[in-house]
Amino acid sequence: MPANTSGKWKVALVGSGNWGSAIARLVAKNVKERSDDFDTEVRMWCYEEDYEGRKLTEVINEKHENVKYLPGISLGDNVVAEPDLLKAVEGANALIFVIPHQFIQQTCRQLEGKIPEGTQAISLVKGVEVKDKEIHIFSEVIKEHLGVECAALSGANIANEVAKDSFSETTIGCRDIEVAKKWARLFETEKFRVAVSKDVLGVSLGGALKNVVAIAAGLIDGLQWGNNAKAAVMRIGLLEMKKFALEFFPGTEAETFVQESAGVADLITSCFGGRNRKVAEAFIGSGKTFDQLEKEMLNGQKLQGVETAKELHEFLKARGKVNDYPLFTFVYNVAYEGVKPDEITAHI
Amino acid sequence: MPANTSGKWKVALVGSGNWGSAIARLVAKNVKERSDDFDTEVRMWCYEEDYEGRKLTEVINEKHENVKYLPGISLGDNVVAEPDLLKAVEGANALIFVIPHQFIQQTCRQLEGKIPEGTQAISLVKGVEVKDKEIHIFSEVIKEHLGVECAALSGANIANEVAKDSFSETTIGCRDIEVAKKWARLFETEKFRVAVSKDVLGVSLGGALKNVVAIAAGLIDGLQWGNNAKAAVMRIGLLEMKKFALEFFPGTEAETFVQESAGVADLITSCFGGRNRKVAEAFIGSGKTFDQLEKEMLNGQKLQGVETAKELHEFLKARGKVNDYPLFTFVYNVAYEGVKPDEITAHI
Repeated sequence: MPANTSGKWKVALVGSGNWGSAIARLVAKNVKERSDDFDTEVRMWCYEEDYEGRKLTEVINEKHENVKYLPGISLGDNVVAEPDLLKAVEGANALIFVIPHQFIQQTCRQLEGKIPEGTQAISLVKGVEVKDKEIHIFSEVIKEHLGVECAALSGANIANEVAKDSFSETTIGCRDIEVAKKWARLFETEKFRVAVSKDVLGVSLGGALKNVVAIAAGLIDGLQWGNNAKAAVMRIGLLEMKKFALEFFPGTEAETFVQESAGVADLITSCFGGRNRKVAEAFIGSGKTFDQLEKEMLNGQKLQGVETAKELHEFLKARGKVNDYPLFTFVYNVAYEGVKPDEITAHI
Repeated sequence: MPANTSGKWKVALVGSGNWGSAIARLVAKNVKERSDDFDTEVRMWCYEEDYEGRKLTEVINEKHENVKYLPGISLGDNVVAEPDLLKAVEGANALIFVIPHQFIQQTCRQLEGKIPEGTQAISLVKGVEVKDKEIHIFSEVIKEHLGVECAALSGANIANEVAKDSFSETTIGCRDIEVAKKWARLFETEKFRVAVSKDVLGVSLGGALKNVVAIAAGLIDGLQWGNNAKAAVMRIGLLEMKKFALEFFPGTEAETFVQESAGVADLITSCFGGRNRKVAEAFIGSGKTFDQLEKEMLNGQKLQGVETAKELHEFLKARGKVNDYPLFTFVYNVAYEGVKPDEITAHI
């Protein structure tokens, strides 16, 4: 079946966290301005929770603002928060997945068999799925469950900055160039510049693996070792990311890591401004676990770097390759095995 | 004539600024510990100036500290500051050039015909030399003048951090692997990790071109556009650096820019911690020129990014290639032509 690029796309977001809300705002603006290509209503699935005694979806739909995860930013009155997943995606033929990776399996299971053929999907989910000796990006997981094509979007995109229209770039990985262009038309604004690539794997893996390196960078900040040390850790991390992608995801393009926003630029912004960095910095000398710090510091957001480090470690162990990835392994060991952060130079 | 790697090296530094002094300290420590390979006295040529009514060289030799350019750090009692260039290099067979690039021509001219065959040199000078339609790295300029082989050392090395033994990496570019190993033995410490490459061009160009990108990154800081915008500018800058090197210096290895400390890591540390970044940040809204800010902020150190941008611009203009390097050109235009920094996204 040919890709559905000529008809109008009706867009639904599966997810409504910090990044999901920032993206909803861009999409809502664009579907209005580009209504020849898009239906102007954007539904946004929102996991229902209490917000000051009311339902969060009700507050979002009244204020047109995600008061919990992106306070102070207007989403647009054409964004409709919907607590029922199936209702949120009903009638949509373009699905944006933007949920923490811990929730992707259960969400996809609810959608199985309910998504019409020809629907296009795009994953903004950061992370990888590991089962025993197998590892997958979430574009593949979504495709597998729903039977639809799934692109990926990732880049140097700290959500709060995108939400404030600070200049940013991003990368869309999509095998079908016409579909890629339509996704670009949905997301791109004057201040949010989109580049298109065929490398779905590289785009996804950049976004997943950089979170592990950002933990290491945050540890260096906490140790106050300075910019040279941090740059060294980032360089070593970037090489491990690329090596990992090329070794375990044949077909990944090395260039994506060193040329695209989804590669080196996302690594840079995450190692200087992201939440993984921030929590890892606070870890030093705190005597607390990453779990505790996540709860205290992230207001319900998830800390993806240590979770991804754990998944990578399980996978590398199953493949007998732990020693080939010393930086990833070190982050795992600090987070779960009590290894001291200041021993890093003996390991990498 | 075979490279002089079996005999002892007697080392002299040509230069004694912030970076030169930090390097002198490492070298002084290593020649003592590795006296089988090196003579234990390190002479350091020091452009004589007044320091609180005394000669700077006298104060350095009394305190074993460069009180003006690296205050608070002991250089080691085997570093001898010498104001006479020819006396400083007399008897030396290993020369470390570490002066601002504005001074390399006049310094080399004084040394012409005075350097024995078989002497090894290494350039830590940042920048490029442009004459009309020709462009050269300083390793080539030194080789041309003195008739000796000249390697290059560059990396993510903010001088004050290296001086305090914070963990850092660097890259030595040297075509002869045995000579490279001896240079590594001279510089490497537990906290200053040296990688060796044959790519003298890439190592030199990384150190020269990143200063221009660091100016752009500093402008973004001054504009307070956030981490995403800065990462985008750094990504675009890294691609321009690589493109420039490959186009005008045939034989450069692209990998150096994306894998080595002299490439992406140096770019990162310079865009977050370096003096080019700092002055460019202060430029925003100051109403002052870069020249004024250099004098006010840098205590006699040179601001290399805008000078290099000017040289690149002259060269690109002579070659009719200005439009192919929009970021380099933009930095030139801001520094010399009054273009407003906040117009950057319309140019790159």
